[in-house]
Amino acid sequence: MATLGDIGVAAAINILTAFAFLLAFAILRIQPINDRVYFPKWYLKGLRSSPLQAGLFVSKFVNLNYKSYIKFLSWMPAALQMPEPELIDHAGLDSAVYLRIYLLGLKIFVPIAILAFSVMVPVNWTNSTLKRSNLTYSSIDKLSISNIPTGSNRFWTHLVMAYAFSFWACYILKREYQIVATMRLHFLASERRRPDQFTVLVRNVPPDPDESVGELVEHFFLVNHPDHYLTHQVVYNAKNLSSLVSKKKKMENWLDYYELKYSRNPSTRPTKKTGFLGLCGSSVDAIDFCTDEIKRLSEEIELEKQKVMNNSKYIMPAAFVSFRTRWAAAVCAQTQQSRNPTVWLTEWAPEPRDVYWDNMAIPYVSLTIRKLIIAVAFFFLTFFFMIPIAFVQSLANIEGIEKAAPFLKSFIEMQVKFIKSFIQGFLPGIALKIFLIFLPTILMIMSKFEGFISVSSLERRAATRYYMFQFINVFLGSIITGTAFQQLDQFIHQSANEIPKTIGVSIPMKATFFITYIMVDGWAGCAGEILRLKPLIFYHLKNFFLVKTEKDREEAMDPGTFGFNTGEPQIQLYFLLGLVYAVVTPFILPYIIVFFGLAYVVYRHQIINVYNQEYESAAAFWPDVHGRIVFALVISQLLLMGLLSTKEAANSTPLLITLPVLTIWFHLYCKGRYEPAFVKHPLQEAMMKDTLERAREPNFNLKEFLQNAYIHPVFKGGEDSDSEVMSEKWEDQEPVLVQTKRQSRKNTPLPSKHSGSLSS
Amino acid sequence: MATLGDIGVAAAINILTAFAFLLAFAILRIQPINDRVYFPKWYLKGLRSSPLQAGLFVSKFVNLNYKSYIKFLSWMPAALQMPEPELIDHAGLDSAVYLRIYLLGLKIFVPIAILAFSVMVPVNWTNSTLKRSNLTYSSIDKLSISNIPTGSNRFWTHLVMAYAFSFWACYILKREYQIVATMRLHFLASERRRPDQFTVLVRNVPPDPDESVGELVEHFFLVNHPDHYLTHQVVYNAKNLSSLVSKKKKMENWLDYYELKYSRNPSTRPTKKTGFLGLCGSSVDAIDFCTDEIKRLSEEIELEKQKVMNNSKYIMPAAFVSFRTRWAAAVCAQTQQSRNPTVWLTEWAPEPRDVYWDNMAIPYVSLTIRKLIIAVAFFFLTFFFMIPIAFVQSLANIEGIEKAAPFLKSFIEMQVKFIKSFIQGFLPGIALKIFLIFLPTILMIMSKFEGFISVSSLERRAATRYYMFQFINVFLGSIITGTAFQQLDQFIHQSANEIPKTIGVSIPMKATFFITYIMVDGWAGCAGEILRLKPLIFYHLKNFFLVKTEKDREEAMDPGTFGFNTGEPQIQLYFLLGLVYAVVTPFILPYIIVFFGLAYVVYRHQIINVYNQEYESAAAFWPDVHGRIVFALVISQLLLMGLLSTKEAANSTPLLITLPVLTIWFHLYCKGRYEPAFVKHPLQEAMMKDTLERAREPNFNLKEFLQNAYIHPVFKGGEDSDSEVMSEKWEDQEPVLVQTKRQSRKNTPLPSKHSGSLSS
Repeated sequence: MATLGDIGVAAAINILTAFAFLLAFAILRIQPINDRVYFPKWYLKGLRSSPLQAGLFVSKFVNLNYKSYIKFLSWMPAALQMPEPELIDHAGLDSAVYLRIYLLGLKIFVPIAILAFSVMVPVNWTNSTLKRSNLTYSSIDKLSISNIPTGSNRFWTHLVMAYAFSFWACYILKREYQIVATMRLHFLASERRRPDQFTVLVRNVPPDPDESVGELVEHFFLVNHPDHYLTHQVVYNAKNLSSLVSKKKKMENWLDYYELKYSRNPSTRPTKKTGFLGLCGSSVDAIDFCTDEIKRLSEEIELEKQKVMNNSKYIMPAAFVSFRTRWAAAVCAQTQQSRNPTVWLTEWAPEPRDVYWDNMAIPYVSLTIRKLIIAVAFFFLTFFFMIPIAFVQSLANIEGIEKAAPFLKSFIEMQVKFIKSFIQGFLPGIALKIFLIFLPTILMIMSKFEGFISVSSLERRAATRYYMFQFINVFLGSIITGTAFQQLDQFIHQSANEIPKTIGVSIPMKATFFITYIMVDGWAGCAGEILRLKPLIFYHLKNFFLVKTEKDREEAMDPGTFGFNTGEPQIQLYFLLGLVYAVVTPFILPYIIVFFGLAYVVYRHQIINVYNQEYESAAAFWPDVHGRIVFALVISQLLLMGLLSTKEAANSTPLLITLPVLTIWFHLYCKGRYEPAFVKHPLQEAMMKDTLERAREPNFNLKEFLQNAYIHPVFKGGEDSDSEVMSEKWEDQEPVLVQTKRQSRKNTPLPSKHSGSLSS
Repeated sequence: MATLGDIGVAAAINILTAFAFLLAFAILRIQPINDRVYFPKWYLKGLRSSPLQAGLFVSKFVNLNYKSYIKFLSWMPAALQMPEPELIDHAGLDSAVYLRIYLLGLKIFVPIAILAFSVMVPVNWTNSTLKRSNLTYSSIDKLSISNIPTGSNRFWTHLVMAYAFSFWACYILKREYQIVATMRLHFLASERRRPDQFTVLVRNVPPDPDESVGELVEHFFLVNHPDHYLTHQVVYNAKNLSSLVSKKKKMENWLDYYELKYSRNPSTRPTKKTGFLGLCGSSVDAIDFCTDEIKRLSEEIELEKQKVMNNSKYIMPAAFVSFRTRWAAAVCAQTQQSRNPTVWLTEWAPEPRDVYWDNMAIPYVSLTIRKLIIAVAFFFLTFFFMIPIAFVQSLANIEGIEKAAPFLKSFIEMQVKFIKSFIQGFLPGIALKIFLIFLPTILMIMSKFEGFISVSSLERRAATRYYMFQFINVFLGSIITGTAFQQLDQFIHQSANEIPKTIGVSIPMKATFFITYIMVDGWAGCAGEILRLKPLIFYHLKNFFLVKTEKDREEAMDPGTFGFNTGEPQIQLYFLLGLVYAVVTPFILPYIIVFFGLAYVVYRHQIINVYNQEYESAAAFWPDVHGRIVFALVISQLLLMGLLSTKEAANSTPLLITLPVLTIWFHLYCKGRYEPAFVKHPLQEAMMKDTLERAREPNFNLKEFLQNAYIHPVFKGGEDSDSEVMSEKWEDQEPVLVQTKRQSRKNTPLPSKHSGSLSS
């Protein structure tokens, strides 16, 4: 077991690492050459242009102003200064609410830590159970519940504290749910006119031998929503087309590359082999080849476009139906249309940029089968993922390789020392690491297969699965050493009241491990996040080799998103650790608080300056966040019950059973009270906005506004100039808050311009 | 263990009992004097009048036609003859679908039994495990799985059979769900105009200092449903008033009684004591007293009525809001109205006669707290109900009584033999029996406390609870002997994979017990049901003592209902037994099939001739029925898994785990596919009916039709003549299928007249 000193050394190392990262960031960020890596958001917003205009040549790349080096931590207060409404305006509600999760952590754990250190630590400290016992123990354990003698009355303190912590957490959770729900409703209410406010997605349009999908949809809604139906857009199956478009784009990139090469070395025209991966086949002039290919692809795309538009086989049985009023759209989204509940499924349309186009045409039966398959697959992924990895690892030792490739034998045995240690020390770990790196992608693919139709819901589902995986394989896996499958086997063979005991007993012993984990994964991870080492390197590589025009440079920027599907489960793990250890080993709490504080500042900075969110779901993820914290709360209560029952404080059991019952009830109450704000669409709000708008702009042509809102992105590609005109028109019509110089729309496709808040 | 002979004897006794009941019924039902007991439904429908018109005096009471005695079982084919559409017309969809549950039992178990007896019984029979062992065993056990040697390959038969049975059950369940859903939709679509089709119940109207509830409701819906809102009716708090009305009614009954007494014995006017329960206080002339009281109460009622109607304090924050079209009502019922999801809660209004008026005004927070309280209370009721009963039982022995009342000691000791045996043999059992008789009432009170607003939903919830109670205390309680709490304690201390084993192993041993149970509770119970002993006796007592006029005689009839909250859980127990034992001891199946067949005939007869359903929920209970059968299926699969794993057929476990997973998936699929038909209200249907009706009767005054539909029943009391006129008007307007001579409306209140199907 680690002593206080060990922890101190680990803390020192991690603090130093984090500090080094922060220092590196502070220096790198003020170099003009890195400006686009650390402030891409502002470039995308058009509020910042390249710092290449004036001054010395050197100062284009290196910051020579020594003053800016002195105040190198100035970004921190700057990140905190932007008020929340402005932040919502700047980065969207999703990002603003995402930051509130970190704040929520501070709000929950700071008072809990104060209470724990002022009450529970003295109670734990003033015992001498560990001293009297012959066990080795550390100073941390003296602060923990382990130091209380079996059957002592002092456990009442822990019981009372468990109640106090739970009530405090629930109080804060309820308050936060209310605030976020209000923010969401206010955000939705103060938004400008957006196509998705008037539009409903209809799926599973039943096939009809006499009518096309478009006619069928039109007739159905003209009959069943006669006064409200406005227009509709059918969904085309454009998978083929979009693959052609991306091929063309790739070819254009190659063309750029070869032209650059040629311009640098005009003596020889670059050549290219036509075969597999450019490795074999006959050699041709690369620039000509690319130009020809692009021409051919363009023609093919045009042909495919015509085919898709005109052939009814490419029309999917789904459509975006728009209504005259928000009220009618809210009505249609919330009601069942047909007698058969598996056809004419309506739901609120996601934002155009949030639509996941490939999943539009999945029929109902297929959806339920996919759900079953994914549920089973996820079960096996969670509990048996170690099997293939162990198999790979078993191959990755010397004997395995020797068996697989006998001809290497002599070679290996010659240089055996170094290679052996390399292979055996490094490769097995790498198999696991690679799996863990790809896990979010695997989970995302699973969600896609399951048939969600918006990117936001895909990410939410992937986040849920990632959390479950982490809970089982990181949290439980660290406490009860062994693979998830071994745990499962153990739990099945244990009685229901033994399971919390088994876990509960191991918990105090694992405190030091989790403290180290928090420092490495949390502290250093946060500091690494702000440094953006990978985007920094990639940007400069691209900038050096590929960038010719301003547009290329913009494309070389990779702002990324805050990544809800990986970020949120990580935060949730800290909530879980904090709540579980609050009563058992409160010494862990300060580390968690430091994490939440640091992460809050770092992510606030990143959200203001870097990340460019790809969609806006108006904080639709909050019910998940809330639910997982309540889950962590219940788990912590059950584990405490298990722990105390082994400490012969069994008369506390009835009181401890009451706690999860009350917590679950609290969850159900909150669910009923606040969740509808995230799922349903109140008619009162819709009617209010409709009425206001009708009074303000009685002659607005809504049909024109909605005409092309939900067109598959590939159809927009060629019509850049058109949409530019369109968007200009919109900007004329509605006063834009910030003067923009839109230079790119790569990451902010057309409809997003009409989003954003009018709240100011 | 019972041998085949024992079972035979038990079967003979029960068959004889059942036969005796049926014979008694056959004779009693053809006596004119009992006509109102056995055919009340026809009297209530006005299609049958008292057989007192002509003929001999004796033939008014006794049937002298010897021919009718010969064909004494003729009621059976008669009960089966009425085709289903006519049955729906006659008794409503609820009753017709309720009968389908019995049919479903036959459909599931007859093929299963045939398969089991042709395949599994030979496989079991041709072993000699039991013969070789030294255990005592019965012939039944030779037919069961117990006869297969441990680790035998023959268990594959049982595995395959388990799959076959599960698939068959699921196939039939799905088919039945589809049929019932179609029946429901057809029933709803073909119904005549009914107030509840246009009406939505709004609860939790937020308080407003400036406006009354009525104004508030009107304004809110005029704003948010401007083209659709028609009218509304506020809900009055008439608890006080209805208690006064029932007091008055009671007093009128007493007056009738005393007047009858006086007319039989005109020499002395009856007297009555005014004190507590008529036992003490001064003696007064009873007839005068009652007349005065009635007068006083009438005045008080009139006063209270005025007060309720005019004082805003008596208006509850709830209202029935009616719309111009069914479409608008469907929209309003399915959407969220306000930003705050706990106010302006809308749901489809129940039928007027189905409304449970007392629960209209419960605010949201209170509802969630009530749910928690009831959940906890039900948990304690289920697991600890034996404690108070054991306490009563412990009092009910000699020592207890002697302690409680020492003065009885000498008395008891004198006649000790007889009294002792009486008290100790009889009283302890009676405490349990009384509890079990009152259990449905207790569960009903629980549901009422929980805040459901229609009688049908109250009954559904009570049925769910009753089933859970039976599952734990009857099914598990019989298999693992011991109270529910002891089981709970045992299960908590057992590992998850031990629990199915513990139960699974005991299952084959309990087959004979359950066979006896089926015969006593099922066979004899059914036959007892048709005899209607209690209503028969009560009717004749009332007829003898109280009945003076034709109206009194109608009131003395007690047709009752089929009692979903007690009847359905009982059927479900048989489904559970059948599915669990199908693979283990198929010998039980014929008994269950006989039960289902007999019960089907008996209940069909009762529904045609006796029961008068108090509401019509259009088979809203089917999702519950389906869900419970699926639950039974999953339980049976888990128990089989437990049983086989003790038989060392462990290599079958993966295959057996797949089965519940598939079954649960099947349930989710059915839930998504068919449940919306029972919960939601498709707009297409509503629109179709609206359009048709508008074309048919363009000038219909809907407002007048809806004006008084949702008035608290006590306000209707005095306006009998008015409503008579109104109802006559309706009958003029819409052609009535059957010529009625409505003599009473006690059990068919006004709005039900407008219900019923137009399908013919």
